[in-house]
Amino acid sequence: MLLIKIDQNSRQPIYRQILEEIRGRIERRSIQPGDRLPSTRQLADLLGVHRSTVALAYQELWALGFIDLRPGARPRARSRMRLPGTGDDGNEGLLHWPTAASKASTAVMRAYERIQPITSRDKKAIIGFKTLDMDHRLFPVEHFRSCVSRVTKKKGLSLLGYGDHAGFPPLREYIAHRLQTHGISVTPGEILITNGSQQGIDMVLRMLAAPGRAVAIESPTYGHILPLLHLAGLKPLEIPVRHDGMDLTALSRRMRDRHPVLVYTMPTFQNPTGVTTNQPHRERLLSICEQHRAVILEDGFDEEMKYYGKVVLPIKSMDTRRIVIYCGTFSKVLFPGVRIGWIAAQKECIERLAAIRCFVDLSSNMILQAAMHEFCSDGYYDRHISKMHRVFRRRMEAATRALRERVSPEWAEWADPTGGYLIWLKLKPVSKPPSDWESWFAAHGVEVAHGRRFFLSDPPDAYVRLSISARDEEEIIEGVNRFAGALRGLHARGPE
Amino acid sequence: MLLIKIDQNSRQPIYRQILEEIRGRIERRSIQPGDRLPSTRQLADLLGVHRSTVALAYQELWALGFIDLRPGARPRARSRMRLPGTGDDGNEGLLHWPTAASKASTAVMRAYERIQPITSRDKKAIIGFKTLDMDHRLFPVEHFRSCVSRVTKKKGLSLLGYGDHAGFPPLREYIAHRLQTHGISVTPGEILITNGSQQGIDMVLRMLAAPGRAVAIESPTYGHILPLLHLAGLKPLEIPVRHDGMDLTALSRRMRDRHPVLVYTMPTFQNPTGVTTNQPHRERLLSICEQHRAVILEDGFDEEMKYYGKVVLPIKSMDTRRIVIYCGTFSKVLFPGVRIGWIAAQKECIERLAAIRCFVDLSSNMILQAAMHEFCSDGYYDRHISKMHRVFRRRMEAATRALRERVSPEWAEWADPTGGYLIWLKLKPVSKPPSDWESWFAAHGVEVAHGRRFFLSDPPDAYVRLSISARDEEEIIEGVNRFAGALRGLHARGPE
Repeated sequence: MLLIKIDQNSRQPIYRQILEEIRGRIERRSIQPGDRLPSTRQLADLLGVHRSTVALAYQELWALGFIDLRPGARPRARSRMRLPGTGDDGNEGLLHWPTAASKASTAVMRAYERIQPITSRDKKAIIGFKTLDMDHRLFPVEHFRSCVSRVTKKKGLSLLGYGDHAGFPPLREYIAHRLQTHGISVTPGEILITNGSQQGIDMVLRMLAAPGRAVAIESPTYGHILPLLHLAGLKPLEIPVRHDGMDLTALSRRMRDRHPVLVYTMPTFQNPTGVTTNQPHRERLLSICEQHRAVILEDGFDEEMKYYGKVVLPIKSMDTRRIVIYCGTFSKVLFPGVRIGWIAAQKECIERLAAIRCFVDLSSNMILQAAMHEFCSDGYYDRHISKMHRVFRRRMEAATRALRERVSPEWAEWADPTGGYLIWLKLKPVSKPPSDWESWFAAHGVEVAHGRRFFLSDPPDAYVRLSISARDEEEIIEGVNRFAGALRGLHARGPE
Repeated sequence: MLLIKIDQNSRQPIYRQILEEIRGRIERRSIQPGDRLPSTRQLADLLGVHRSTVALAYQELWALGFIDLRPGARPRARSRMRLPGTGDDGNEGLLHWPTAASKASTAVMRAYERIQPITSRDKKAIIGFKTLDMDHRLFPVEHFRSCVSRVTKKKGLSLLGYGDHAGFPPLREYIAHRLQTHGISVTPGEILITNGSQQGIDMVLRMLAAPGRAVAIESPTYGHILPLLHLAGLKPLEIPVRHDGMDLTALSRRMRDRHPVLVYTMPTFQNPTGVTTNQPHRERLLSICEQHRAVILEDGFDEEMKYYGKVVLPIKSMDTRRIVIYCGTFSKVLFPGVRIGWIAAQKECIERLAAIRCFVDLSSNMILQAAMHEFCSDGYYDRHISKMHRVFRRRMEAATRALRERVSPEWAEWADPTGGYLIWLKLKPVSKPPSDWESWFAAHGVEVAHGRRFFLSDPPDAYVRLSISARDEEEIIEGVNRFAGALRGLHARGPE
């Protein structure tokens, strides 16, 4: 018989007490599937409560899936009884996800696993040259905070509803205006705000993806584009990057034999090589793509970091025939966490991308777009860029000086960067290369990105990319010391 | 000869004055492509400035793409001279975007055009029952603002860097905990934060998309999923929705003959029909999908709006075999503008989705996730939900009462909703139907969504969806009056 203790003084209604008690017993299996429960009358008599109270509890138990109610019959605990537990209950589930999900998504998963940071070692003791994260210590947090606070006060309500798919209009205006300093003339209608430039790249690929289509990429290139190509079903065509940029002869050949719909390029401080192409190279690239009617996706992720004053304008600035889609971001100079990037392209292209955006995730949030607009139009952005230039000119000089002093030309060769955060080194062959280069360096207290991350297929030589984006001068010098120590160790090992 | 007025007192450096003057002339075409400029020595003499000043100006002009510099020769204005103008210059560009972009993206564009709001008429004078936007007047703006302010103060710096791909951990914990009130037991590791549930749906489709794969959808269904299926290259299979939910006999047949990899369903307050399925229906659906190893994507967009107290738990709550991916959102109860939704699914599935997320746009911004977590854990969310229940119980009652009073059963039939915001009406045939139903209603001062928006192919009957999500009682009553007037007008017209 079902004995339930009713607490008349509880704030919980009596029907709820009955419900919870029975639910608990079913979950703990002291009532088994198929077991019959007392009728409403029986239980009401037993507990000394009104019949309708029991009826209410039973109705809820039915709605929650715990019991069956049939007219004229006593309630029964249901067969689909066991509520699912959590993922920790050892229940593996019915589906085999590698089969249920697409092959492309499995490739994405593998790529994701490869970029997971080292967590086993003491992160604090390691100097990180691996990622392109920003140095948080340089963030003008107070200024941004005051901007967030001001915009939520001034127009909080209007920023909390669904926003414009293409972005917060004043921010689009600001970006269009700002791009003029890089020689790019576009109207605000030719700007689309994205969740970082990453989303911009993804949407451009999705706009162009169709079976059999190919995309020309630099080799090496930004590692994060490879999984996106996979996901979009676009075939990547690797075009080698030389000391002066993409090999345009190779590109022309690919244009003729494989007709890529898109060329993805980072003409300024290319990731990972740091190479900046010159004006004639940019014009020739543009002209090749015009001739073959291929779209150029120009990734200007580090456009603002031309701190040596030497300016080469983006390809987009020469784009009289409107074949260039330019993507930019705030994330490589401040606050990657606000996730604001943009695309500048011909209006018709922007409208297509805004349509995709609308279905993909509707829009970016308006609050942080408005705060960023406030931040920029108050002049904080310009001031921050100036500061970044001053700081990184010094840091890059410290890095290249330390490399020259510590790293023997017999161990590695590199070109001094003309801006940005990246130094790309080609390592000289060693007789006993480590099985895992990154672990070798990590064991020497410095984290670097192995070149393989940036190639589709393994390159013949060993490269490393050093990113100084998050390190100060002292850390840079110590990091280069450790890096040199790791190389020295390799060269000292000699053949067995 | 090149005459340039130098202002020695200007704050602009002299080299810059020279640069800007020459640049202007080239842009205005008073210097033509191919024209030779003075040598540095000539111009320096002419202007009475140092030769290095002129050299610096020329170098910058070269870098900006305006002139050619060759050793021993005089500089020349370049042939690629005209910097591109803006989209308003009438230059159409080289590419034909409908050809350059994929056919799928053109379909997305068409779908986007169809959802554009009416802008030609006086919006203020029209009562809107068309969209599922929230009533901004109910937003607890002050509370949210104070949460934003508190989190940026407490942990501003840490929220401005790149965040966790899967979401802000404390918010994942809160959501996992909160889902228990809906009978769903998941760990925080089984939660992924998304930019609204829209991004969640998109990512699930991308995870499963492969050539030849099909997805079963309800017919009618949420209009925004159709373009996403198109973009992912997934074939939609329409399963009719009856008064009690998806036709499971039709679904079983499709399972056998077309093997969809996914069934997309909204069991509670289905959009657009408002139908909520009962417990046995949910169990049968689950069992059919288990049998055929199809994934269920359960869209719980309105889970929180069960304001009549009657609770049917989500399918996910019965998902012992882990085939259900559940997506939820804050956007249908508060602040759609913060763009926060979530996915609850088996851990392995969540990890796959997090990998996709990492490449698609890295992560959601941390600031608003932290603010939302603060908002929820301070109890504001629960209080807001209680308020929404009180308010919408009244509003829905006002709506259904007004419909009963004003709309003749000879004009339309409908079922009273059991919660949510939507009322779905089947319109009786009229002898002279309007060519554009939505415009007919708009001309009577009320905006509704025509049923066609929610079907893949045109349905045999005419339907309208009324959404009361953004309207108060007074507006609802007046809106229903106008709606009734428009129907009356149609029925009064009679055959010609």
